[in-house]
Amino acid sequence: MPLIVQKYGGTSVGDLERIASVARRVTARKDEGNDMVVVVSAMAGETDRLLELAKKINPVPNEREMDVLVSTGEQVTMALLAITLESMGHKAKSYCGWQIPLHTDSSFGGARIADVKKEAILTDLQDGRIVIVAGFQGVDDDGNITTLGRGGSDTSAVAVAAALKADWCEIFTDVDGVYTTDPNITSKAKKIKAIAYEEMLEMASLGAKVLNIRAVEFAMRHRVPFVVRSSFNDNEGTLVTEENSEMEKESVSAVTCNMKEAKITLSGVADKPGVASQIFAPLAAANIVVDMIIQNTSADGKTDITFTVPDADLAKAMEICQDIKKKLGASDLAGCNDIAKVSIIGLGMRSHAGVASTMFTALAGEGINIQMISTSEIKISCVIQKKYAELAVRILHDTFELGKARS
Amino acid sequence: MPLIVQKYGGTSVGDLERIASVARRVTARKDEGNDMVVVVSAMAGETDRLLELAKKINPVPNEREMDVLVSTGEQVTMALLAITLESMGHKAKSYCGWQIPLHTDSSFGGARIADVKKEAILTDLQDGRIVIVAGFQGVDDDGNITTLGRGGSDTSAVAVAAALKADWCEIFTDVDGVYTTDPNITSKAKKIKAIAYEEMLEMASLGAKVLNIRAVEFAMRHRVPFVVRSSFNDNEGTLVTEENSEMEKESVSAVTCNMKEAKITLSGVADKPGVASQIFAPLAAANIVVDMIIQNTSADGKTDITFTVPDADLAKAMEICQDIKKKLGASDLAGCNDIAKVSIIGLGMRSHAGVASTMFTALAGEGINIQMISTSEIKISCVIQKKYAELAVRILHDTFELGKARS
Repeated sequence: MPLIVQKYGGTSVGDLERIASVARRVTARKDEGNDMVVVVSAMAGETDRLLELAKKINPVPNEREMDVLVSTGEQVTMALLAITLESMGHKAKSYCGWQIPLHTDSSFGGARIADVKKEAILTDLQDGRIVIVAGFQGVDDDGNITTLGRGGSDTSAVAVAAALKADWCEIFTDVDGVYTTDPNITSKAKKIKAIAYEEMLEMASLGAKVLNIRAVEFAMRHRVPFVVRSSFNDNEGTLVTEENSEMEKESVSAVTCNMKEAKITLSGVADKPGVASQIFAPLAAANIVVDMIIQNTSADGKTDITFTVPDADLAKAMEICQDIKKKLGASDLAGCNDIAKVSIIGLGMRSHAGVASTMFTALAGEGINIQMISTSEIKISCVIQKKYAELAVRILHDTFELGKARS
Repeated sequence: MPLIVQKYGGTSVGDLERIASVARRVTARKDEGNDMVVVVSAMAGETDRLLELAKKINPVPNEREMDVLVSTGEQVTMALLAITLESMGHKAKSYCGWQIPLHTDSSFGGARIADVKKEAILTDLQDGRIVIVAGFQGVDDDGNITTLGRGGSDTSAVAVAAALKADWCEIFTDVDGVYTTDPNITSKAKKIKAIAYEEMLEMASLGAKVLNIRAVEFAMRHRVPFVVRSSFNDNEGTLVTEENSEMEKESVSAVTCNMKEAKITLSGVADKPGVASQIFAPLAAANIVVDMIIQNTSADGKTDITFTVPDADLAKAMEICQDIKKKLGASDLAGCNDIAKVSIIGLGMRSHAGVASTMFTALAGEGINIQMISTSEIKISCVIQKKYAELAVRILHDTFELGKARS
């Protein structure tokens, strides 16, 4: 019997009506003759409610106990869905992370999945039960409850699908799938039928919020193809899978935009070994994630170093950089959050020449100055002034003809 | 180091302020040099909220999944308390039922405790941690989450105290202790300093709501003395313990009153073997708990049978009795919920003569007719008309001088 793993996010199980709607969707596939495993998130807003409760006690609450607290969110959802399915005359059984068990390491709040035991679930499926699994949570070797971090339910679903060798994995969310760019920026944005793991990973790390990065990494590593689709309609969604020759036909698959970064420049730094580590080690120690780093050509033994950090960390990063500036004897320090990072992503870049120059020319044509550039094999990112962000996205979307219907 | 087990009920942990207050109480005892284990209930109202959510889906929801659902209530409380204690600079660790593990049978919604593993908790205590345990919940042999039924957290506390061989067990609630009668009925009601398990059991089953019956049974079976006291003040509370000679000095320890029963009479029933079972077997099959049963002296081979059932079950019981009436060829069937059951309880009854007649005389003195009488070794219950309930309680409280200060 084909085995399907479905995952429903917070808005898809936001109230009892939505849970009933999920139950109907699940039973329809069950009635078609499939074994069904359903991974659920906490009801929309519940995780935040619990987090806020804890933060009223302590802004930095004990991490082990935070996982005990927030893991109740999925437990409530899975019980309500099981009760709904049983009421509809189906046999259903719910599993907390520890009941599977889904083993993780002990990094509370951001645990990594070690392995997923399949035996208990397979037995229930053989008995004709619909199995419901709490997403986002697991258990460590000492029997502590762990959680996988924000969006972790996606990772749970992929991990469960991998362990059970599922025939099909579907991630249900509140959007129709993965788009060529943010439909809020241009109505020409098109849903992508199929996208490679690598492209999806770049998109996720460049600002597309539809999927959790770890989930995509996990799927790529374990070769689990999956579909992202909406639980609010019957539209087809986007298949995230291994790359194929079809995907390389187009040079660019998507345009993304991240307006939540800020830029820091240290000028007049001595151009000698060890300088970069003196700058970035203290930032890493403060848990500030540095994204792009650019070092200008040296002049007179001095150089300028520019890098981007999350907008929210700018103040903290500037404080740290004041110290660094003194230590290094840099001439100037400047921070600026009036920037946006616009990126184009596509497997086809590897075989299509001139993609970068086409991008730069398109931006220049609108009078948009490029402040920083960063590239990988399958993406090009440009930092520009924030006010041009939407214009840049629209012009790049047009330039690479992403609004056209594809095969 | 002395080991104290404390249990805090729903109102005692009703919000973050109350939880902070509990934390201060716990750490004060810890700082005095005690090992502390704290058993917690769900925050007041939370269990009802979850029950109602499930009952919107199905009035009779799947029992296994109900336990998965409602057990999240205690899990939230224990995490919040642990976070609070850690914030105060103490080491704390919370335990779900399955983490202890606290093993139960598989009677979802009303599971019975089989055993409590002490090893993990003792290790944490040795490491200087305050251990917090989710009340009300356990795990069965198949790894399913179970709950102990309403008030089950009291039982959890007593079971944990028994397993750990605690030196002291305190049940914190929203009342000061066990009173000689309901203080809402007479201001003369006095808090009892010490009461025997047997008396407390009778009181709990006769309408006193302060303690869960199973918890008292468990404490009696495992000889765990415990104190009931308020988390809202520092008053001393009531010790529930094994009987001692002091307790027998007074003939009566308490007066209780239950206004939530109804009375059913089947008249003109053939007085022959098997009749009682023909009446009570169908009622038991319908899960209706019959309390008092009285069969009058037979006249002309016919007899009248009167019994009491919970008020809420009267309609259902009357339906069943209509059938029984036909089958037995009884002459009449009457139901009535205009009754109250007033009881006096006391170990001293065993050695003090004339307690019953003193009770009957006192009631007669106020013109109160007694409709039914039921006795055990340490209690006498009378069913009277409901309107006399409070008067009867006051007059019995006076008659047996329960308002007097005791040693």
